[in-house]
Amino acid sequence: MSNSYVIGVDFGSDSVRALVVNAQTGQTVGTHVHEYVRWKQGLYCDPATSQFRQHPLDYLEGLEETINGALSQAPNTVRQQIVGISIDTTGSTPGPVDETGLPLALRPDFSENPNGMFILWKDHTANAEAEEINNLAHHWDTDYTKYVGGIYSSEWFWAKMLRTLRVDKAVRQHAFSWVEHCDWISAVLTGNTNPLTLRRSRCAAGHKALWHSEFDGLPSDEFLTKLDPLLSGQRDRLFTDTYTADQPMGNLSAEWADKLGLSTDVIIGVGAFDAHMGAIGAEIEPYAFVRIIGTSTCDILMAPNDEIGHRLIRGICGQVDGSVVPGMLGLEAGQSAFGDLYAWFAQLITGPVRELLGDEAANTMSRQLIPHLSAQAAKLPITATDLIALDWINGRRTPDANHTLKAAVAGLNLGTDAAKIFKALVEATAFGSRSIVDRFIEEGVPIKKVIAIGGVAKKSPFVMQTLADVLNKPIQVASADQACALGAAMCAAVAAGVHPTMAAAQQAMGSGFDAEYHPRSEHVATYETLYQKYLTLGAFIENN
Amino acid sequence: MSNSYVIGVDFGSDSVRALVVNAQTGQTVGTHVHEYVRWKQGLYCDPATSQFRQHPLDYLEGLEETINGALSQAPNTVRQQIVGISIDTTGSTPGPVDETGLPLALRPDFSENPNGMFILWKDHTANAEAEEINNLAHHWDTDYTKYVGGIYSSEWFWAKMLRTLRVDKAVRQHAFSWVEHCDWISAVLTGNTNPLTLRRSRCAAGHKALWHSEFDGLPSDEFLTKLDPLLSGQRDRLFTDTYTADQPMGNLSAEWADKLGLSTDVIIGVGAFDAHMGAIGAEIEPYAFVRIIGTSTCDILMAPNDEIGHRLIRGICGQVDGSVVPGMLGLEAGQSAFGDLYAWFAQLITGPVRELLGDEAANTMSRQLIPHLSAQAAKLPITATDLIALDWINGRRTPDANHTLKAAVAGLNLGTDAAKIFKALVEATAFGSRSIVDRFIEEGVPIKKVIAIGGVAKKSPFVMQTLADVLNKPIQVASADQACALGAAMCAAVAAGVHPTMAAAQQAMGSGFDAEYHPRSEHVATYETLYQKYLTLGAFIENN
Repeated sequence: MSNSYVIGVDFGSDSVRALVVNAQTGQTVGTHVHEYVRWKQGLYCDPATSQFRQHPLDYLEGLEETINGALSQAPNTVRQQIVGISIDTTGSTPGPVDETGLPLALRPDFSENPNGMFILWKDHTANAEAEEINNLAHHWDTDYTKYVGGIYSSEWFWAKMLRTLRVDKAVRQHAFSWVEHCDWISAVLTGNTNPLTLRRSRCAAGHKALWHSEFDGLPSDEFLTKLDPLLSGQRDRLFTDTYTADQPMGNLSAEWADKLGLSTDVIIGVGAFDAHMGAIGAEIEPYAFVRIIGTSTCDILMAPNDEIGHRLIRGICGQVDGSVVPGMLGLEAGQSAFGDLYAWFAQLITGPVRELLGDEAANTMSRQLIPHLSAQAAKLPITATDLIALDWINGRRTPDANHTLKAAVAGLNLGTDAAKIFKALVEATAFGSRSIVDRFIEEGVPIKKVIAIGGVAKKSPFVMQTLADVLNKPIQVASADQACALGAAMCAAVAAGVHPTMAAAQQAMGSGFDAEYHPRSEHVATYETLYQKYLTLGAFIENN
Repeated sequence: MSNSYVIGVDFGSDSVRALVVNAQTGQTVGTHVHEYVRWKQGLYCDPATSQFRQHPLDYLEGLEETINGALSQAPNTVRQQIVGISIDTTGSTPGPVDETGLPLALRPDFSENPNGMFILWKDHTANAEAEEINNLAHHWDTDYTKYVGGIYSSEWFWAKMLRTLRVDKAVRQHAFSWVEHCDWISAVLTGNTNPLTLRRSRCAAGHKALWHSEFDGLPSDEFLTKLDPLLSGQRDRLFTDTYTADQPMGNLSAEWADKLGLSTDVIIGVGAFDAHMGAIGAEIEPYAFVRIIGTSTCDILMAPNDEIGHRLIRGICGQVDGSVVPGMLGLEAGQSAFGDLYAWFAQLITGPVRELLGDEAANTMSRQLIPHLSAQAAKLPITATDLIALDWINGRRTPDANHTLKAAVAGLNLGTDAAKIFKALVEATAFGSRSIVDRFIEEGVPIKKVIAIGGVAKKSPFVMQTLADVLNKPIQVASADQACALGAAMCAAVAAGVHPTMAAAQQAMGSGFDAEYHPRSEHVATYETLYQKYLTLGAFIENN
């Protein structure tokens, strides 16, 4: 069999990238990145109220440009050998669509209305609605939050949909249904965006829209109507079935085949969220714990369905059959701040420098400060009387979500300098990781290996070594620079029938690991002591 | 009666200053400051081991230069009108002397031996000895620490003496007795430095050498011998009687009359510690709480003896009959870090600036940062959900001394910037102050007014306003730039018979107050809430 190629497209928060990958060898033959034009200008956003919206044109322009850009890097023959395309996106990033599946913002009357656009995952305008969902669900016959860790978030589908319907009469009148970003892009490529028939992602539906087979799909119309009569009848205009990312969505439409210079034989896979496809790209396997470590972390653990079943894993973000790989339960966890904690501390120092010495000095500091503090911190001794910090600078995602929690630093004396605090902050993020790992283990979900991807994993050996020491587990860093897009390409290869299973695609296309951090035995006991202090301080802060 | 003049000399940690003051009006007619020459070069000190020694020649040179310098600013006739001189110094700052009262370092064989010099208050080389004193005293029939708050400090007389005798055989052989800095300087001026007959300061003896009338003076020879046989017999070579600062020490010696161009009729008053004479200079009165606010605070409260009697005030630094004014109990408290906490935070930011941008940038930051952060912090709203910090960056002096405690900051989120932390640190120092004030009140010692002196009191309106708000009491800032030296001058005027009492001297010579901070009623309740959180966080940190 001659070579076939697949395309993985990864829509991130600020940009979209496409990889053209050899489906037999995993070799990348073309890549292209596009930054969202309107987003970059700050349009439709209001950080003061945590309103973050993205215009669908940003997505469409990025989709076409990145695929064509990546293909133009590849040999000429590759275009004819493309057999599949799959998409991952951030999430929950839903938007309102009309009867044809057209996002309202693509209609002239909504082109500048943020409420007709996609509501980015980090938009927090629906805090009140999330609280209402929690209150109602916790007193309903069926607690619909049971598979999402018991706490519905303002970052998720129903909260955003309800809030938008409440505040915008025009959306209320014209929104026939709602779609997640990953579903809509995949649907666009097939030419069928009909919200009643497009294949919805199991990953998005299960983790963010309270879909579960036990509920026969989405929450009942009675529940939704009780939440708000505005939601009455919405369930029937959404979906009942969901699909895993190994499934085809359909064929590439003639329109997009033309735009991309590809055949209409190309299969479009069902979409999913970035972290889940990233886990595939990072060669997740049963009981491997894949961490996407950047400003925050998204952690994915996968376990055979028949070993966990319907048992609830307490205090994590969600557990969804097939959200990563069919037949496997995908378990999601994460830390609300990881690199963000270090960036916050750097900004704490750089802010007054900007105010007193100006932009040039501050920019120099900004560039050099974290590497400088990392180098100093790496040389510090590690003792049981060191500072203790809590990592909750942006609340706590898992275990046991609590977004009202705040960070702290204890143990300061006159000898405490910036490097010592930085070390404590790095340790705090590692202790937060440890508390997630411990929770899985306490709940009977063993962790057989730890795999890391993301910017911090790639760039910060000091952080990764500390993490290995604190977890007392080796950590492998995936080689792939774009693990999410590579995972999407693997999904495309399965959806297109090149490989029979995700595992086979990973085996053929995986790019392995380029670093492995081993716990240093001399620090394990000290970190155990410090971790107990972290838990004690954390319990105090949480209860006061 | 024609004008008479007095001289107050204040020996601080880094320098000594003299004021020539009109004893009738309090007008200052001459002033001079001298920085210790050897100290400034870092001689005889080792910050790494907290060894801080001062050479007696630094003191003698400073004594002569400042008095002559101050007199040279005054009209020519003033020299003939000088009637008294009194001295205050830091303390406990003891040194070993031979049979003639000569500090060993003034003998050729000890001239470069730090153990033959004065051991500055902040020298911590005697930590182990202080611990031994505490352990023995707490199990002795008489707990000799009962009037110094139950905890003997390594900064005090006996610990320093014992440590020096242990480590230095030559000192052991040649030290006949020991004197406090304030006693020795005063004795030098009289020409009688005989350690058996010079008049020892009640203030120094009572607060630092465990002298109390209930003990018939110093701790028993049995106790001292049990502590270490090296101390056997020392009690008899020290002193039994002590004197208050209204008493004369003697007349100016012919030698020093000649050096200073003064008459041998000039009365030299009994010495005392700087904070106590500072309290007099700041016009302390019964139940006034005088705070010397600088890098740390020393707080003096004065109450009529017959109202407190021998009742122990729990958890303060010490309570000594007559340590400020005869007939009054002088109660000492303080915070181990005040301005030092702000300086620590500024250094936390400036340190990386120095490392990455160089000295010039760092020096600019150093000069401007605290005023800049103060200006920003003063504009911040004050709410019950603000950050909470603990001020124990250098341990806690009072209430309930515990030098192992450390500082903390809680309530950090992504919006926390340097100004918000600075505000929390300022509030933490105010909460530490509040806990001292509350302790006095709980112990039945009312506080009728609060008076502040020292660098922070003079220079930081934001800090002082916050302190007034947190204490919910008005605070008066004394006008005198050199309140300690002015207090010494008032003591000199009483010792020389110009005024019959300290109160009369204060009435005549006091320079009043130049600022008064009133609590802002709109913030009192919020600060009460934040203070309760401070106490809760503090209790957690202390117990974990």
